Amino acid sequence: MSILAIAGGVGGAKLAAGLAQALPEGALTVAVNTGDDFEHMGLTICPDLDSVTYALAGLNNREQGWGVTGESWAFMEMTRKLGGEGWFNLGDRDLATHVLRTQRLRQVSLSQVTAELTGALGIRQKVVPMSDDPVRTIIATDEGDLAFQDYFVRRQCKPVFHAMRFDGAEKARISEGFAQALADPALEAIIFCPSNPMLSIEPVLSVPGVRDALAARRVPAVALSPFIAGQAVKGPAAKIMGELGLGTTPAALAACYTGLIDGLMVDKADDGPIEGIITRASDTLMRDDADQIRVAREMLAFAQDLAR
Amino acid sequence: MSILAIAGGVGGAKLAAGLAQALPEGALTVAVNTGDDFEHMGLTICPDLDSVTYALAGLNNREQGWGVTGESWAFMEMTRKLGGEGWFNLGDRDLATHVLRTQRLRQVSLSQVTAELTGALGIRQKVVPMSDDPVRTIIATDEGDLAFQDYFVRRQCKPVFHAMRFDGAEKARISEGFAQALADPALEAIIFCPSNPMLSIEPVLSVPGVRDALAARRVPAVALSPFIAGQAVKGPAAKIMGELGLGTTPAALAACYTGLIDGLMVDKADDGPIEGIITRASDTLMRDDADQIRVAREMLAFAQDLAR
Repeated sequence: MSILAIAGGVGGAKLAAGLAQALPEGALTVAVNTGDDFEHMGLTICPDLDSVTYALAGLNNREQGWGVTGESWAFMEMTRKLGGEGWFNLGDRDLATHVLRTQRLRQVSLSQVTAELTGALGIRQKVVPMSDDPVRTIIATDEGDLAFQDYFVRRQCKPVFHAMRFDGAEKARISEGFAQALADPALEAIIFCPSNPMLSIEPVLSVPGVRDALAARRVPAVALSPFIAGQAVKGPAAKIMGELGLGTTPAALAACYTGLIDGLMVDKADDGPIEGIITRASDTLMRDDADQIRVAREMLAFAQDLAR
Repeated sequence: MSILAIAGGVGGAKLAAGLAQALPEGALTVAVNTGDDFEHMGLTICPDLDSVTYALAGLNNREQGWGVTGESWAFMEMTRKLGGEGWFNLGDRDLATHVLRTQRLRQVSLSQVTAELTGALGIRQKVVPMSDDPVRTIIATDEGDLAFQDYFVRRQCKPVFHAMRFDGAEKARISEGFAQALADPALEAIIFCPSNPMLSIEPVLSVPGVRDALAARRVPAVALSPFIAGQAVKGPAAKIMGELGLGTTPAALAACYTGLIDGLMVDKADDGPIEGIITRASDTLMRDDADQIRVAREMLAFAQDLAR
């Protein structure tokens, strides 16, 4: 059997980690957004790939919500002392990932580097970038166009979100691992992780062929809502959905995924029918490993029920 | 007034730090060996420039003898976990220097980057690389040719030293700052720091024009011996001088600098006349700041006496 999860960063990483534990070894492929990737201090940084990788390796920093557990910040302290850029925090441990990846990308693809890094950490699931080609999310705001991390980290999502585009998406090719997972005859379900539908999932859907392949799926696709009672568990999803006039109801989320999902798992606080889609309610907040595994199992059961 | 010091790494950095404290602000230029520089993990690392910089900034790690004081090693730990190269230790703080330099080298010269880094640390002396062009020391050993850091760090200087060459030296141009210091009408003395004459000073002399300019000097040039009673204070200088059949006497050192120095300061343990050169003896071991300043003052006085 094979399960494909589509994930952004933190929320996606949590469900991915739950699925990894709920499924037999090797069954899970996580296709990850790379629209947030950027070059910083000469390093290629892939925040969502790293969040998923650290979560699957059990190295994710739960208190902070991103980065590596037990992280230290000597590099940043010295960087500031040396007059370097201080707005994007790079932990000493996290930095090893960026340095190794940047070096290896001179020789091999992002898929290959990701396989090497996850392999070194003992991860038995496939973690694949949506594409090996650069796709860069650009946010059109009331203060002009901002590169994703400028908007997200430097400006802390404060500018009003008008629209977004994905530079490079037109020419990007779906990664081999992602394409293989979509075409796998053993595929049993597709799971949309509780990631930001705009910033994390849309870039994945912007890669040519992905939307069509998902629309033409022969297996159930289910999404887990990142919203609880109109609020995002983490991040700016609620603010952005509000600024776009979409709102944060289950129906608004379902509209983002029209034609791409068969079922939507919402929090009990948001329970209720949505036209044209099957919903199921649960306690969707993932506070710890046990929650992650429970929610993952519920998502898998949901998909299985829809296959019948 | 202007003083030019020629330095390699650790020993050179100690005397450079003493000279910086003994001289008026702005009087000192330290021209630094870059033959040890190398690319590692995609980063350009300049060990001698960094040793001098950290010493002048008071950030040098005295216990360890290299790197930054109060250093931590989280990056290396994670690098090893991720399957990266572990043979060259990069401290978390030190890494900021390498990352910033590597990034800036895409836009500006090594001289410019060095000026920026030393400026950010509040260093008022000029620290200049011998050249902005890459020069790479290659050691011919009984185990074949080894890149400098392969010989020095990875193999810990264990292979027998047969000869060395400086790849790129023929085409390298002397750095502007080094050339300016040599030609400065206000120049009053040239000081050879107690660095490895083969590995640290020879590469500087290999840059076209340097040896000639030093030979044609109009000011006294004095060297501080890195040997005490036939032993190197630190590093493989004694081993290498032995393997080359030169020995570690003051006379052997003076022979390395024939025509380039007027005086040689040796340790009291090595006192004695050398044909064709003026020697002076002192307590040359630099244990702390006070020693560094004292020895620096003695070197300056020695040069001044030779000018009369």
